[in-house]
Amino acid sequence: MRPDGRAPDELRPHSFERDFTAYAAGSVLVTFGYTKVLCTAMIDEDTPRWMRNSGKGWVTAEYSMLPGSSPERIRRETNGPKGRTQEIQRLIGRALRSVCDMRALGERQVLIDCDVLQADGGTRTAAICGAYLALSDALVRPRQAGLIEVDPLTDVLGAVSVGVIDGEVRLDLPYAEDSTAETDMNVVMTGDGRFVEVQGTAEAEPFSRAELESLLGLAEKGIREINELQREYMAIEVAPRPLGR
Amino acid sequence: MRPDGRAPDELRPHSFERDFTAYAAGSVLVTFGYTKVLCTAMIDEDTPRWMRNSGKGWVTAEYSMLPGSSPERIRRETNGPKGRTQEIQRLIGRALRSVCDMRALGERQVLIDCDVLQADGGTRTAAICGAYLALSDALVRPRQAGLIEVDPLTDVLGAVSVGVIDGEVRLDLPYAEDSTAETDMNVVMTGDGRFVEVQGTAEAEPFSRAELESLLGLAEKGIREINELQREYMAIEVAPRPLGR
Amino acid sequence: MRPDGRAPDELRPHSFERDFTAYAAGSVLVTFGYTKVLCTAMIDEDTPRWMRNSGKGWVTAEYSMLPGSSPERIRRETNGPKGRTQEIQRLIGRALRSVCDMRALGERQVLIDCDVLQADGGTRTAAICGAYLALSDALVRPRQAGLIEVDPLTDVLGAVSVGVIDGEVRLDLPYAEDSTAETDMNVVMTGDGRFVEVQGTAEAEPFSRAELESLLGLAEKGIREINELQREYMAIEVAPRPLGR
Amino acid sequence: MRPDGRAPDELRPHSFERDFTAYAAGSVLVTFGYTKVLCTAMIDEDTPRWMRNSGKGWVTAEYSMLPGSSPERIRRETNGPKGRTQEIQRLIGRALRSVCDMRALGERQVLIDCDVLQADGGTRTAAICGAYLALSDALVRPRQAGLIEVDPLTDVLGAVSVGVIDGEVRLDLPYAEDSTAETDMNVVMTGDGRFVEVQGTAEAEPFSRAELESLLGLAEKGIREINELQREYMAIEVAPRPLGR
Amino acid sequence: MRPDGRAPDELRPHSFERDFTAYAAGSVLVTFGYTKVLCTAMIDEDTPRWMRNSGKGWVTAEYSMLPGSSPERIRRETNGPKGRTQEIQRLIGRALRSVCDMRALGERQVLIDCDVLQADGGTRTAAICGAYLALSDALVRPRQAGLIEVDPLTDVLGAVSVGVIDGEVRLDLPYAEDSTAETDMNVVMTGDGRFVEVQGTAEAEPFSRAELESLLGLAEKGIREINELQREYMAIEVAPRPLGR
Amino acid sequence: MRPDGRAPDELRPHSFERDFTAYAAGSVLVTFGYTKVLCTAMIDEDTPRWMRNSGKGWVTAEYSMLPGSSPERIRRETNGPKGRTQEIQRLIGRALRSVCDMRALGERQVLIDCDVLQADGGTRTAAICGAYLALSDALVRPRQAGLIEVDPLTDVLGAVSVGVIDGEVRLDLPYAEDSTAETDMNVVMTGDGRFVEVQGTAEAEPFSRAELESLLGLAEKGIREINELQREYMAIEVAPRPLGR
Repeated sequence: MRPDGRAPDELRPHSFERDFTAYAAGSVLVTFGYTKVLCTAMIDEDTPRWMRNSGKGWVTAEYSMLPGSSPERIRRETNGPKGRTQEIQRLIGRALRSVCDMRALGERQVLIDCDVLQADGGTRTAAICGAYLALSDALVRPRQAGLIEVDPLTDVLGAVSVGVIDGEVRLDLPYAEDSTAETDMNVVMTGDGRFVEVQGTAEAEPFSRAELESLLGLAEKGIREINELQREYMAIEVAPRPLGR
Repeated sequence: MRPDGRAPDELRPHSFERDFTAYAAGSVLVTFGYTKVLCTAMIDEDTPRWMRNSGKGWVTAEYSMLPGSSPERIRRETNGPKGRTQEIQRLIGRALRSVCDMRALGERQVLIDCDVLQADGGTRTAAICGAYLALSDALVRPRQAGLIEVDPLTDVLGAVSVGVIDGEVRLDLPYAEDSTAETDMNVVMTGDGRFVEVQGTAEAEPFSRAELESLLGLAEKGIREINELQREYMAIEVAPRPLGR
Repeated sequence: MRPDGRAPDELRPHSFERDFTAYAAGSVLVTFGYTKVLCTAMIDEDTPRWMRNSGKGWVTAEYSMLPGSSPERIRRETNGPKGRTQEIQRLIGRALRSVCDMRALGERQVLIDCDVLQADGGTRTAAICGAYLALSDALVRPRQAGLIEVDPLTDVLGAVSVGVIDGEVRLDLPYAEDSTAETDMNVVMTGDGRFVEVQGTAEAEPFSRAELESLLGLAEKGIREINELQREYMAIEVAPRPLGR
Repeated sequence: MRPDGRAPDELRPHSFERDFTAYAAGSVLVTFGYTKVLCTAMIDEDTPRWMRNSGKGWVTAEYSMLPGSSPERIRRETNGPKGRTQEIQRLIGRALRSVCDMRALGERQVLIDCDVLQADGGTRTAAICGAYLALSDALVRPRQAGLIEVDPLTDVLGAVSVGVIDGEVRLDLPYAEDSTAETDMNVVMTGDGRFVEVQGTAEAEPFSRAELESLLGLAEKGIREINELQREYMAIEVAPRPLGR
Repeated sequence: MRPDGRAPDELRPHSFERDFTAYAAGSVLVTFGYTKVLCTAMIDEDTPRWMRNSGKGWVTAEYSMLPGSSPERIRRETNGPKGRTQEIQRLIGRALRSVCDMRALGERQVLIDCDVLQADGGTRTAAICGAYLALSDALVRPRQAGLIEVDPLTDVLGAVSVGVIDGEVRLDLPYAEDSTAETDMNVVMTGDGRFVEVQGTAEAEPFSRAELESLLGLAEKGIREINELQREYMAIEVAPRPLGR
Repeated sequence: MRPDGRAPDELRPHSFERDFTAYAAGSVLVTFGYTKVLCTAMIDEDTPRWMRNSGKGWVTAEYSMLPGSSPERIRRETNGPKGRTQEIQRLIGRALRSVCDMRALGERQVLIDCDVLQADGGTRTAAICGAYLALSDALVRPRQAGLIEVDPLTDVLGAVSVGVIDGEVRLDLPYAEDSTAETDMNVVMTGDGRFVEVQGTAEAEPFSRAELESLLGLAEKGIREINELQREYMAIEVAPRPLGR
């Protein structure tokens, strides 16, 4: 029995709130159970030097937890991001780039920021799901303005955590499960069912090939549901943004 | 005529949303027009060494702007807080301590975090208003538990910005006014009408004694309204917090 | 009775020693009682990129205390300036810019350095008084050389601290008073009696409107005396500087 | 055809040189083709505070590339380790801890250092293979001295990279293949054939479930060979270390 | 002919001004020509942990150049001291410790600060000469108070630079000579004519054994004169210091 | 009697292993007794801005100790190099530049890296000896390719430490002697017997002129032997380097 009464293959209640803030080009609050991440996307037309004349753009991500997002206060990383933070932001950036055609994006940079308002496990996978939508929303304006001609996004993108707890494989772990899991795995997939990232770590006990197969199957099921919801949202036109401050 | 149609002595629409997040002891989203600041308060019973056996506590504050809070992305301060940030967090901490009896608080530290979700001027004064409520909420539990016997808060506390724009004194400046003001002043006051901080700066043109008097009067009017609202909120019992994660 | 026997509205003995060192364009040792600050001004004709083609210059300031300037050794800030230091150097820069016409200055930068040799309270206000003279002296050469045609300085500039100690308002606080003041205020004024900065802080007890008025009046009196002395010095021609090293 | 003529499922020539340096408790130079990593293990009996009275030890790892280890000089990370470095050292530490019984190790810390002398792809997996042997050698002395009673190592540990290049799955990628791989996967396994880490990343094109299965099979084959060699080495007694300097 | 008309074996005009500032236990302004260094010495009775119960003290030094001390502004080293600075402060500390009996000093630390007010070559050797006197003055009080029973200073200590310019060996180089010297040498000697430091560097051309001998002889001559002056000063009783602030 | 049985004027067994690693242009492992330093030299044709159009090149050096190079683990200097490290790398760079004609080198930079694999005293002097050979080897290719027409190296370069232990002057100190020496001196000389650096430091007791003379004589003898070996190596053609990775 899971602490929140879910079936082993059940996602937590999840949702996306678009236009959560007013100034970023894309701004999505993604919720998975008690986990809440604010994902914003901003476009920088002033490309870095190495990008010029390449005909290609770039997508990069930053991740942070607000100090009050967790029962134990999280210290601000004012002396450079910690190892965990860097791992997560590199993962988010890589994942988003895998479904973004850099040539279609053109010589511009999209800066994604994922700030965790409330943390109850799965913040990095929630961030990927929300950041995808924020990126998508941020591209609407430049496409309407004719700055970008072809949609750079080649597919939808979802992510979820799975794990082995007490020998049972479970989908979408909250903190209580994540912190006691024997194995913890984060999976990122595209809408066509292919893998972008598979990161499985034995926290306590190495895992067998059979367990690995079960985890992958469970992750695939969860991500298909998330992709479904993402497609529904993307069918709705995004509200026009306030014109600056 | 002000850009948003307000009278010169009129505050922007403002509100406090308590329990905005679930894990911090106090969590208040304060809104002044388009400015939104999430203020959390967390109590650290593990006091720093210098506090031990003093019989007294401490209140300290940090301030940050989320990267997507402004039309121009704000870079994260991963190499230490900038001068402006340090000035603001010192101001917030000092202001809160002025209405908190450190002996009544006892040997514990309250850590206030003010994270700007949306910035349209007056973020530091909004932060003080919201942080005061978050601090008040955070003290409810330890008081109920008998850890703190006497209410450490000696008065309510409000803050607002005022300024001179085109020769006219105005209350509660949004970014559009703040960035063009001849003089900019931040005022922090207690409920009994006394000053905690007066910080007036000539941005373009020095200001006369007469202008200073007008600015102080306008600030006093605005803070009285804010104090009124704070008192109304504090009369309502705060929702019981979820029991950890 | 004040610790040094002064009347409440009396400045400490104060003086300016010009050309205190030989290599900076302007070099003034300012003394207020035991407080001694070396203020140098150097002109950088190699303007930063953002200044080019703007037709305007800039004045910026740095502040530091020598380790031996205080009975308790002051640690060097080799990991970036502390919050207090940043607040002070931002204040000095802002104050000087308020009386300097950036267009008359032209595309050059003046770098002011205020290094406290001996600290007995009021170092930031003494620094502003001395830095003003150093800036004035540094402009003499380029004006004589025809690089600057119109005097960029629009007025004299003085600053002083005032405070409430044991319920009494007092002018120009030494450390012994500053550290026990109920309220502490720094005021920067131009020669025509207008305010550039008013920074009042309740250290122990909030202050009333009446106290604020008294403090402002006292500050104005003190600054007028300082301005008088500044004008006397500026009437004397500055000694020609040694020709480099 | 692979650039070095190997079959797709063939490891590069690989070897371990024990006691490569004289002062570290364990010192192994591991070679995979042109990749050479010096792995040292040192025991710190002076445990950190959080470890005391826990009855348990800890194993931690650092990773670095010498500036001359690559055709393009690698800059020293004197402003803190980069994201890639932190990811790698966290991976190495986690992997080693998965086969080390912390209670058998007792209240002591083993510090592993992996310094790349020559880099031609697969440095992190080579580092894990070499670090395992260095750790094993470092434990010999304290076991002989009776400080550690039961062998803390619960199994052998190997790691290898696999990838998809031109649609073909290949084992043990040198730089030339790694930099053009569609998918890159690092796998860490214990001697009993279970997984400790699976980190697969789509560099260019997402990968299918079928490709994932092939990659896992290939990694397993390679790691079994490495484990074989590790066991052979561990059967040979380590040379006695010089008695300090 | 030297730029300032001196004979090759002649020191620049030099002097020591004691009690230059009021709060440090020892405070000496040392002047060699245009070079002026403020040397302060402060005693820390709160010894660092590693010193406790050793029965011994320590002397350490810091060195800095004020931004306005040179025709080209010197940037403050707010990101840690530069290599040159560290070399100099290590040299000063080492030199002073060579004439200070750490057991006679007892478990206390003397912190020396050398701040260059005006730089015209030879700042590090001037700093050593001045710091020696500041250290000596700082020890007077604790000796009078009976905290230190035996004078820890075992001899006087002087330092000077010598160099080869246009093939001629010269004593006490100003900046104009120092920057064009073929060889530059700093020598630190005790009053009994023995060497504490000899640091000779070929800036342009390697130097022969014969040149080295000439340089050493010249340095010895100069340091004997400096020692003479130091002894004269030390025969005069130091003024009583103001009692704190 | 010396701890390793050597005569006072005898060098430790020493050797150079060229092409120790495959990717750096010059790569030499230098050994003096138990001290082993890997010296690599890499040429950067992409010169820094200040070098352009000067017609001259530059040689710079970095130095580091691997964590496992010493019985006590050496912490990585990830917060900037320590004072000792900076002193050493400045010394190595200066020494190499003294025998390299910057105009013959042309507008290119040579980056020398000296990484200590095993430390038993004399690492900085060993590094200079090895770095000289690595630099020499790195210049072979560009000379063969006609990029450099005249050999920039003007002479061979050797370095050694000497010291006074128990009143006896000794050559080439291992750690056991170095840590107990009364005086420690590092000498760098060119093949024609002239000095590049003489750095003598009294660690415990000041040293007399006579001792200084003995130390210089001993150093000269040792360096002549080292130069002999360097010349022998340089007569052998360097193996062709693998063509990148």
